[in-house]
Amino acid sequence: MENKRRAFIKTAMIGAISTSLYTPEGHSLLKPRIQSGATILFQGDSITDASRKRSSEEANMPDGLGNGYAFLAAGKILNRHASKGLKIYNRGISGNKVPQLMERWQEDCLAIKPDILSILIGINDYWHKRNGNYQGSPEEFYEQYIELIESTKAELPNLQLIIGEPFALKDVKAVDQSWFPELERYQKATERVAERFGATFIPYQKIFTKALATAPGSYWTTDGIHTTLAGSELMAEAWVKALK
Amino acid sequence: MENKRRAFIKTAMIGAISTSLYTPEGHSLLKPRIQSGATILFQGDSITDASRKRSSEEANMPDGLGNGYAFLAAGKILNRHASKGLKIYNRGISGNKVPQLMERWQEDCLAIKPDILSILIGINDYWHKRNGNYQGSPEEFYEQYIELIESTKAELPNLQLIIGEPFALKDVKAVDQSWFPELERYQKATERVAERFGATFIPYQKIFTKALATAPGSYWTTDGIHTTLAGSELMAEAWVKALK
Repeated sequence: MENKRRAFIKTAMIGAISTSLYTPEGHSLLKPRIQSGATILFQGDSITDASRKRSSEEANMPDGLGNGYAFLAAGKILNRHASKGLKIYNRGISGNKVPQLMERWQEDCLAIKPDILSILIGINDYWHKRNGNYQGSPEEFYEQYIELIESTKAELPNLQLIIGEPFALKDVKAVDQSWFPELERYQKATERVAERFGATFIPYQKIFTKALATAPGSYWTTDGIHTTLAGSELMAEAWVKALK
Repeated sequence: MENKRRAFIKTAMIGAISTSLYTPEGHSLLKPRIQSGATILFQGDSITDASRKRSSEEANMPDGLGNGYAFLAAGKILNRHASKGLKIYNRGISGNKVPQLMERWQEDCLAIKPDILSILIGINDYWHKRNGNYQGSPEEFYEQYIELIESTKAELPNLQLIIGEPFALKDVKAVDQSWFPELERYQKATERVAERFGATFIPYQKIFTKALATAPGSYWTTDGIHTTLAGSELMAEAWVKALK
């Protein structure tokens, strides 16, 4: 028994090490490459959902991709990689936290068998707790997120992963200074999840903060959380750059 | 009387000359520039309409801009010119020909007072005639289009104009070789309208024909006429380039 247990631990550790050393040559090699015939899946909450039509489940359908960053990024990718026969899906659902992703993961992720999976989650994990509608902590959020990705990688070992940082722009409606620094703990958790799995991390908070030099938060979001068209395009451009 | 008439003719001729010599230095100067506070209006038929929500009339609203090239182009423009406080509208309506634009022009163009007006019209002027649902000719189309722009320029003398070429991709559903060369006479008419008013002309037929080297017509359009997301993005990129 002891030998078996040791062997198991050793295997598990090697697995962990090989994950963390996924691309020893450096961050640039972490960028996902779009192979011919690849399936790309956008997952997340309302920012990703963006009023997508639930009945439009087929790949690459404008109404099925919503009117947010996923649609805009999909347009760029489908245009630039026209010869590759890509399939792009959006399965974001408004209000979702990591536990809701877990509940619907078999149908809304694993069954789709994505080659590239993009996740943007976390703002509700913080926001709903703040509202008193959810019990949770940054630590639990991190653990749940890790569990979600581990179970996904077990099923889809060649998955290329893109993790987006949840973001909020203060002084726009719902969002004020009191959101920080607690939200930053959730943001940091997503960065650590990305690091742990050698995933591409998109620092949306930083990207929006930089954009504030050009136009106020109300130009990029309607309420500090949900993006306007300009904000969605800002995200889509960052998303596409992550794949170059 | 004779003197007055001569004076009128002279004035009219100078007007015509100054229109045709709008930018004597060359085509590059014809490209519209986006000024701070500019209002941009997309007009046309179903390609422009793209399922836009009629009740969403305010500027820059994702659902009000539809899910076609107008939305995608608006996203790029709003992002790249974030400090300018631009207002972008879509008033394309499925099935429209030039006569339908004329009927609703006061409300759906002049009242909006665009600084930049983008028009994509003509495919129904050909298609509906082909179907036997409309009487018309390329010559009438040209004359009607000229009348539309002349009345617009009279009201909005500083208008910057972008005219898109109607297009069709053969061997995709409805469209076959029999569409050509008759359709080309309508296409040529739009190019002549653009030349006459010193407008920017976007040669969509050429752009799509070039794209066929990468993927078939069914990748860029659903039926030879209406664009897929990839086709809409192709148009949006060309549209934005026209403004650079």
